[in-house]
Formats: sequence, C-alpha cells, structure tokens
Amino acid sequence: MFTQLLNQLGVLILQAPMAGVQDERLAIAVCNAGGLGALPAAMLSEEQLAAQIGRLRAVTAGPFQVNFFCHQDPVADDGAMTRWLERLRPYHAELGLPFTPVASGSARRPFSPAHLAVLKANPPNVVSFHFGLPQVELLEQLNKLGILVLSTATTVAEGVYLAERGVDGIIAQGLEAGGHRGMFLREDLAGQLDTLSLVRGLVRVTDVPVIAAGGIVDGVAVHAAMAAGACAVQAGTAFLCSAEATTSAVHRAALAETPHRKTRITRLFTGRPAQGLINRVMIDLADQESLAPAFPLAANALAPLRSAAERSGSPDFSPLWCGTRVDGVRSVSAAEVIRSLAAGF
Amino acid sequence: MFTQLLNQLGVLILQAPMAGVQDERLAIAVCNAGGLGALPAAMLSEEQLAAQIGRLRAVTAGPFQVNFFCHQDPVADDGAMTRWLERLRPYHAELGLPFTPVASGSARRPFSPAHLAVLKANPPNVVSFHFGLPQVELLEQLNKLGILVLSTATTVAEGVYLAERGVDGIIAQGLEAGGHRGMFLREDLAGQLDTLSLVRGLVRVTDVPVIAAGGIVDGVAVHAAMAAGACAVQAGTAFLCSAEATTSAVHRAALAETPHRKTRITRLFTGRPAQGLINRVMIDLADQESLAPAFPLAANALAPLRSAAERSGSPDFSPLWCGTRVDGVRSVSAAEVIRSLAAGF
Repeated sequence: MFTQLLNQLGVLILQAPMAGVQDERLAIAVCNAGGLGALPAAMLSEEQLAAQIGRLRAVTAGPFQVNFFCHQDPVADDGAMTRWLERLRPYHAELGLPFTPVASGSARRPFSPAHLAVLKANPPNVVSFHFGLPQVELLEQLNKLGILVLSTATTVAEGVYLAERGVDGIIAQGLEAGGHRGMFLREDLAGQLDTLSLVRGLVRVTDVPVIAAGGIVDGVAVHAAMAAGACAVQAGTAFLCSAEATTSAVHRAALAETPHRKTRITRLFTGRPAQGLINRVMIDLADQESLAPAFPLAANALAPLRSAAERSGSPDFSPLWCGTRVDGVRSVSAAEVIRSLAAGF
Repeated sequence: MFTQLLNQLGVLILQAPMAGVQDERLAIAVCNAGGLGALPAAMLSEEQLAAQIGRLRAVTAGPFQVNFFCHQDPVADDGAMTRWLERLRPYHAELGLPFTPVASGSARRPFSPAHLAVLKANPPNVVSFHFGLPQVELLEQLNKLGILVLSTATTVAEGVYLAERGVDGIIAQGLEAGGHRGMFLREDLAGQLDTLSLVRGLVRVTDVPVIAAGGIVDGVAVHAAMAAGACAVQAGTAFLCSAEATTSAVHRAALAETPHRKTRITRLFTGRPAQGLINRVMIDLADQESLAPAFPLAANALAPLRSAAERSGSPDFSPLWCGTRVDGVRSVSAAEVIRSLAAGF
C-alpha cells in the first residue's frame, strides 16, 4: 500500500520531520517539489498542529506526513532533576541568570487521542512515529482513516517488531541520522547500524517497504540506498539550512562554520540519545551524560541557559541537531535539495 | 608518497589485516590479484612473522603491508579477572570443563623493537597500526627503512592526531567495520562515525591520504567511498569466507547462516570494542560487558570455553568478527573479491 502510494504519486523522497527547526512552510515546499513533506508534531499543541495542517492543505494537494513521538512519559525523579540542575548552576552564574530550581521548556508529548481528533478533521496521507508505536487502539483508528503508518527502526530487531505490528513502512534510521535516535527496544549504541547495513538487514527479513534515512545528502547516497534495497529515502540534514526551514541563526551559523564542526550522539539535551554538532556543553559534560534526567524531562533544564546564550549569539547550550554528513548542509531552496537528491535515482 | 605508491603500483584495494582468520596465503592471493595484501602480526611470535613474510616474499614481488597493534599493556587487576572468571564459571560446568582460575590464550602484543628487527631483515612496503601509534623512536626507524606508515582513525579527531604525527595515510575505520575498533583517543561509541562521514570529515581537515574502511563489500560501496574523497579502500569482511582465509568452520558456518545473524560491537572477547556476529555469550552478557577485564587480558578467559564449544561445532563462545554488511561475505577466491570491488572504480 505504501509502495503503491509511492508509485502512484512518484514520491521517492521523504522530508524528515524535524521538530524545532521547521513548520509547515518547509513541508509545503517539499510537497510542491514532488517530495513527501512532513510536519513534526511532538512539540505542538493540538491547535498549532491543526493550524499547520490547515495551512498546508490550503496550498498543496500533494500527500504529506505528520510525525509523532510515542515515548512513555517517565515518572518524575526530583532527586535526579535536582542533581542535574545543581550541575548546571555554575553556568547560570556565568550567564548572570537567576538559578531557578523549577525549569521550564517546550513539552514533548506522546501521540494521544487528542492528536487523533486533529487528524480526523483533516487526515494526512501518512503518519510516522518515533520511539516505537502507540497503543494498538490508536493504530487501529489511523488504519480506519486510511492513513498509512510508518515507524522508525534503528536495528533489524526493531524493524521486525514494527513489521509484526503491521506498519506500512519502516524508516531505517542509520547512525548517520541527525536528531533523536528512534531506538526503542534497547538504548545502547553498540548494536546500532549505519544506514546501508540497516537497510540491507531489513530487506532480507521483511517484505515491508524500507525507507533509508541517515546520510541521504546527495545523489551518490540515494543511489547507494536504493541499491541496498530501499524503496525510498528520507532526508533531514540536507534541508536544515534550506530557505524554508526555521532553523535558528545560531544553529545556521554553527552549520556553516569552516572547518565543519563534528557531530556526536548525546542525551544531554532531552534525556534521549540524539545527534548534533558538538558544542560547549557537550564537551564540558561528555563524561557526565548520565546526569541528564529521563526524556523528555532533561529538555527543560537547559532551556534558560540556551535562551540566554542564544541572545548573545552563542550556540554553547543549544541542541544543534545535524547528521554526520555535515558537508551535506546547503543553503538553497528545498526544491533544489529535492532536485539534487533526485539525481541519484 | 603513499598516493605515489598507489598510483605507481595501481593498488587501490587494501586487504584488511585480520588476526585469527588469515595468514600469508590470503595476503599472497590479494597481492597476486593486484591488491595490497596484509599480514596481521598482533598474535604472532617474531619467528612466525618472519616466516610469513619470507613465504610471501618468496612468491610475490608486489607490495604488502604488515599490521601491528600498539596498545599499552594494562596493569593486571586480579580482582577484576576473578570476578570475570566467576561470572563464566557456570559455562564451565555446562560444558564439563574444569574451572581454571588462571586462564590461557593467545597473547596480543604491541609493536616492539623485536618486531622492528624482523621488519629490518625483510622490509614490507607498508606498516599499519591499530589503537594509535607506537613510540616516536620506533616510527623513526620505520621511516629510515623507507616503510610507509598507516594508522587507523575512527573519528576526525583521531585522524588529525595521526596527521600531526606524520603518518603517510589514514585508514578511516567507519562503524561498518568488523573486528576491533581502532579507537584510541576516546573509548565511547557516541562520537563514532560511519565510513563515508568519516572519510568526508577527514579529507576536509587534512591532506594526508585517506583510505576508506568499513562496509567496502561491493562496487557500489567502493564508488561511494571514492566519491567521498578516499584515495583507496580497505576491505575485510568481503574476504572472510574467501578460499584463502583460515576462518574456522564455526565462523564460516555462522557467516553463511540464512537469515544472516546480526552484528554488534562488544568488548567481551578481548576487553576492547570489536564488531562481530551476535552469538550466545554476547546475548547472555549484553548487560554485563563492563565485567570483561582490560584489553587484551579478557581474551584469555573465554579461550577454554571457546575451544570446547567449537569442538562440538558451536559458535557460542567464539568471536565471530564481521562487519555490518554481513551480506557482503562471499565464498569465492580472493581474486574474485578484488575483481568485484574493482568494478566500483
């Protein structure tokens, strides 16, 4: 069914949903260029999500996807949060900020019936999940609406898990990918794979279509992914500095540095492993990553430091999400990114 | 100088040195097929190394490399070893083995003046190192002998470190690679890169030639590596089941299983992170990896279990080194592997 959608619409390039650096404008640009635009919903209220879908549908008839997280909210651990905030206290002093024991920041909420109600009013063609799958009742509702369901696998075992639960497509997120790793069966990195090996491993154990994600920055990468057996590709980093992204000035500046910054997987920013450009806080706390509380609670603690630092143009406390192919970031239109990727088919 | 050697001799494919699964016969086959054959010396005595070099030189005039480890021998920690052996005690009972508190197994010795003396008698064209570089005095001796020096980088920072110390080429070992990770500046996996991203990152910060290693299993991979800026490629997994390798029967059988086993990075077998097919001991002890003593001391503890299990055809306790591209293992001659890789140039 997913492959049919791809064939029918000629959509072979999916734009990775990237919470925090895009809204519907990037998705629209991608849709209009023949790709599958995506709206990341994890940090949106229902009203914001409905508004973005409405604005997208008003200007494009093409298919699009909406992405949700489906983590389990953790039990708050006041002791862990206190220890984390204490570790961050010296930074507050340095930046001249009051030290607030209760931190605030954007919430990251898992897919819920409230989200489903928004989708019912204006159904997207595709819904994708990160961190596993939601309750089966919610999945059945999506199926009834005729919405195709994708989810992310970072290992072959996760792909098999998803296939057994009836997903329409598996996003094979290799270690090259930026942002949060979708890993949900195990949290250690020792069994994680690069994109091509993951795609090869998945297509040998399942007939569910596999979408290659991670390192998809140019035609060479697209060609290799399709040769490995992918039915389509998903690109994120390549769109990070596109004109239509909302990527912040400090993030864009860090991405544009020469020589390039390197990337690293860290859980400091949210409590889950995610890949981004290395900055000061990642270097300072490289050996204390375990202090960050469980996802998504950790995200709030760094928020005041990030805001203050960014006001003076510093990326020291910002999550600078980016895949390993930093050289693949280009300051061009989303349509131009699509064109350069399409050269690989 | 290294690029000159490559150009002069037309050597663009290096055979990865693979201690434990090959001797000079694989290296000779590779040399005769136009690649750079390699002798892994880490588990050989000086006499064995001299004999292998002698036999190789007797039948081929082509260039070849010898590979050494250059780790620091750890201080023995009797408590750690006792705890590790105690954890393995139930396996001894299961296999009907006496429980011997003093374990034995192959030594893994770092590059030393004794090795240098062997090389002086019959110099290889290239010496490569894993786990950093040896003392500067030893490096200078290699330079005086006209031997080109390569070493392995798993991050851009490690590549810069090697370039600053004058290596002739950097082996960019991406996460796809099988066997021991050459990481020497940091031991965590969160900053490790896939092959293409590592190659791209390195060629942007250094003029030292970069050799792509990891995932080099077919022409597509070779093409992508060269497009990323590599001057040559190094393949190991592709040769694992070649006719000329000494890969054990249980190892070959595990590699040939359908569906393929998956790989994982583990330190259980030697004390250093290394990638291989997942087997029973890796699954059993996945959450107790830190129990394994420091490299190379851990290697001895599993040796009796491995031997006993292998005698009954079981790979449960064997290091089944393999890269992530398990599909790239082919039971053909080394020359045929070289031919298929060469199609990517």
